[in-house]
Amino acid sequence: MRGLGDRMILYQDRIAASLGLNNNDFISVDILREKGPITAGELSKLTGLATGSVTALIDRLEKLGYVRRQNDPSDRRKVIIVPLYENKQEVSNAYLPLHSALVKLASSYTVEELELITQFLGKASTVLGEQIHILSSTTGNKSSS
Amino acid sequence: MRGLGDRMILYQDRIAASLGLNNNDFISVDILREKGPITAGELSKLTGLATGSVTALIDRLEKLGYVRRQNDPSDRRKVIIVPLYENKQEVSNAYLPLHSALVKLASSYTVEELELITQFLGKASTVLGEQIHILSSTTGNKSSS
Repeated sequence: MRGLGDRMILYQDRIAASLGLNNNDFISVDILREKGPITAGELSKLTGLATGSVTALIDRLEKLGYVRRQNDPSDRRKVIIVPLYENKQEVSNAYLPLHSALVKLASSYTVEELELITQFLGKASTVLGEQIHILSSTTGNKSSS
Repeated sequence: MRGLGDRMILYQDRIAASLGLNNNDFISVDILREKGPITAGELSKLTGLATGSVTALIDRLEKLGYVRRQNDPSDRRKVIIVPLYENKQEVSNAYLPLHSALVKLASSYTVEELELITQFLGKASTVLGEQIHILSSTTGNKSSS
C-alpha cells in the first residue's frame, strides 16, 4: 500500500505539473469531480485545508476554468462549487496513458476478481478518509503546502 | 483508483506535516525504505527529481537523521544512501492508526483474496512507476515542489 501510495503521489505531482497546476489545487479538483457540487465548507472538511485557504483555492481554480461558484438550487442562501473538470480536454488527455495501462492490467482479471479488488480499493479509500479526518482534527488545519 | 490516490496524497501530506517534513522529502524517505540503499542517481531516477534537487534533499534528510551517506561496500567509488527510517519511532507511531485500520480491513478477507489484492496493488504500482518515468522524461525534471 505504501509503495503504491508513493507512486500515486509522484504520478499526480507530474500530472499536475504538466497541467500547470500546483498539486494541492489539483487534488481538490479531483475531489470535486468525485463528490460533485459541494460547499466550500465541505471541501475544507474533505481536504483538511483551512477555510481561508479553500477560498483562495476556489478563486484560483475558477480563474483557470476548473470550477464555477453558483447558488445551490435547493437552498439559495448556500453557494456551491461546481466542477467543470470533465470539460477540460487536457485533463483527460493527461490521464489517458495511465488509463490505458490500467485497463490493460484489469483485462488480465476476471469480473469477480475485479469486483473484489474494486470493493477493497473503495474500503481502503474510506479508511484513509477517516484517518485524514482524524489527523486534520488533531494536528489542526494547515494553510497550504 | 483516483479517489484512493487523492486520499493517499492527502494522508501522506498530513503525516509528513506531523513529522515536520515536506511531502517530497517524505516520499523519498519512503522510497529509500522500499528500495534499500541506493545511489543518489538511482533516487533521482525513481523520484523524477533533478540531480541537484536530490543532493539538497539528501543533505536535509541526513541532518534530520532519516538517511546516512556511506561508501558502497561492493564498489568503494560509489556513495550509497542508507535509510535509517525504521530507527525513527515517531515514523512508526505516525502510521500506527492507519496500519491498525488496514489490518482490521484485511481481516475481513480470506488469504486467497488478500493474495489477489496484494498482487494487483503490486502490478498497479509497477504501472504507475512506468508512467512516472515516461512523464519525467517527456516533461523534463522539475527542481522541486
